[in-house]
Amino acid sequence: MRLKDLAEHLGLSQTTVSRALNGYPEVNEATRLRVAEAAARLGYRPNASALRLATGRSGAVGLVLRGADELGPHMSEFLSGLGGRLATEEIDILVTTVESYQDEISAYRRLAASQKVDAVILHSPKLHDERAEVLMDLKLPFVLHGRINGDRPVAWLDIDNTGAVERATSHLLDLGHRRIALFNGVKGRTFAEHREIGYLAALSARGVPFDPALMSNSIFTDEVAFRLAQAMLELKPRPTAFLAGSMMTALGIFRAIRQAGLALGKDVSMIAHDDVFPYLNADNMYPTMSTTRSSIRAAGTRIAELILQLLGGKPAEDIHELWPVELVLRESSGPAPTP
Amino acid sequence: MRLKDLAEHLGLSQTTVSRALNGYPEVNEATRLRVAEAAARLGYRPNASALRLATGRSGAVGLVLRGADELGPHMSEFLSGLGGRLATEEIDILVTTVESYQDEISAYRRLAASQKVDAVILHSPKLHDERAEVLMDLKLPFVLHGRINGDRPVAWLDIDNTGAVERATSHLLDLGHRRIALFNGVKGRTFAEHREIGYLAALSARGVPFDPALMSNSIFTDEVAFRLAQAMLELKPRPTAFLAGSMMTALGIFRAIRQAGLALGKDVSMIAHDDVFPYLNADNMYPTMSTTRSSIRAAGTRIAELILQLLGGKPAEDIHELWPVELVLRESSGPAPTP
Repeated sequence: MRLKDLAEHLGLSQTTVSRALNGYPEVNEATRLRVAEAAARLGYRPNASALRLATGRSGAVGLVLRGADELGPHMSEFLSGLGGRLATEEIDILVTTVESYQDEISAYRRLAASQKVDAVILHSPKLHDERAEVLMDLKLPFVLHGRINGDRPVAWLDIDNTGAVERATSHLLDLGHRRIALFNGVKGRTFAEHREIGYLAALSARGVPFDPALMSNSIFTDEVAFRLAQAMLELKPRPTAFLAGSMMTALGIFRAIRQAGLALGKDVSMIAHDDVFPYLNADNMYPTMSTTRSSIRAAGTRIAELILQLLGGKPAEDIHELWPVELVLRESSGPAPTP
Repeated sequence: MRLKDLAEHLGLSQTTVSRALNGYPEVNEATRLRVAEAAARLGYRPNASALRLATGRSGAVGLVLRGADELGPHMSEFLSGLGGRLATEEIDILVTTVESYQDEISAYRRLAASQKVDAVILHSPKLHDERAEVLMDLKLPFVLHGRINGDRPVAWLDIDNTGAVERATSHLLDLGHRRIALFNGVKGRTFAEHREIGYLAALSARGVPFDPALMSNSIFTDEVAFRLAQAMLELKPRPTAFLAGSMMTALGIFRAIRQAGLALGKDVSMIAHDDVFPYLNADNMYPTMSTTRSSIRAAGTRIAELILQLLGGKPAEDIHELWPVELVLRESSGPAPTP
């Protein structure tokens, strides 16, 4: 049944029916109830474009990238998931690239003023992140990928970074490792703070002292990880295990291990965080890579759902999901070498 | 100097000045000339938003993806370059994901009707590609990434795929290889057709017969390449060299070589096409990978420029760039093994 059919059945104009269904104030209460009842009884479901026309929505979700480099492998996997789900609702993604934090704030103001998007995705949060405040003040609906500290309720989806790293660290401790290096993300970013908490909790539970020389905070590239790992492997005593923050980080660490003449999975162990890139498969590495695994594409798909819920009227404070992370053991992690 | 200042100086309204500068017909010729002269003399340059307001432009460029998988590593690098350049003009990218070819055509109609974008990027072309016809009929400006056959003039940027593969194949022939496998893209796609031409030309120039068993047409993933390479390595005589269509393909071929107990760069050679992914660096591989190299991110940046030129009034038939491709020799390619 189309809007046209419902309108004919009721003897009303399509505009009136559409306004009634979408709660516009110019439709009186009696008509609204009559339309709602008929729609329910006849099984009328508005299609995406009709709904958009009636509600004045733009049919796009916004994503602001700070610097073109933010569109890296993580973001493109996320967007793949997001776009795939939004496509079924004929909703587009409006990507705005800006050069600085201040430009990002300006971009949100511009997006809110132009009504080019119905909602935005707030990503890469810091624990204290005023962007969420700005979006709330602009009344621009948003779903946060990650978490922030703050009193006001926001819709969010995050993975359990603390639990993932705590579990991986504990497993390496079980295998006898005591010098475990954590290759963490940039300081201040929520996920990096959460991973640090998990790491410290696991060490502390076994009474293993924290050595700051074994923790790095950096971007996740092969090149940076290679240099940091080279330096760490020259420490005496050197680390016997590595926690790599991403698969790209794992590649760089692996290269440093190989260059030092060590064997991964025997002399040195590694567990990497795997966001599940189709082209960097942990099972296809040599040796195969032990991972903490959570698909960032699946997170994108789910965030599309959450945006639809938010736009459908579900309160932001009722939208939050914390996803558990799997620990998948393969060949790269083994018992600590005997000293 | 702002539009406001120029208008005050001339004693005209901002609207009139803006229309005069943008060639609207309702401004008479005398005024247009007076405004143009003053603007030139006083050094007035319209800013992006003023221009947009005056011209009724949307300030966005459209990109339609057929299936969420199209947003893979190649597209995300391309978008990085594109977005970085468009950001300086405050132009956004509107990403529409669709599920089929017919949906893609519909999406272009929708984009043209809604005036949500000023231009689109047509990508992943086939040699005979009716999408370009549709866009021309819709009068939706576009720049093509790649090339198509056809009579009507289109703006395009492409890399010299034919030359790249011809050169890589000739180099392997120089090294004594006679069984050279080409891992090519999906049949019908322009770049794959061009690569095949280059491959066949190089073989033919040396009188080496073409063996269809040594050419594959497939998507570029590690997994698919692994299986195809496994099968090819069982041929007797087996190939002694591989041309990998992408770095992901190279990973899969490399895995098959290693699993067959062969040494890359000694028993078997490989040259891979490298679109320059920051996280899959040919120099960081082990052994380092010989490549034909062309940055797809740089192509994205340049296509942003070409779109600006097109929107600035440059005719589509004057916009075409064919980029040469470098051959970078590293450790993975060496002399053919003696039989």
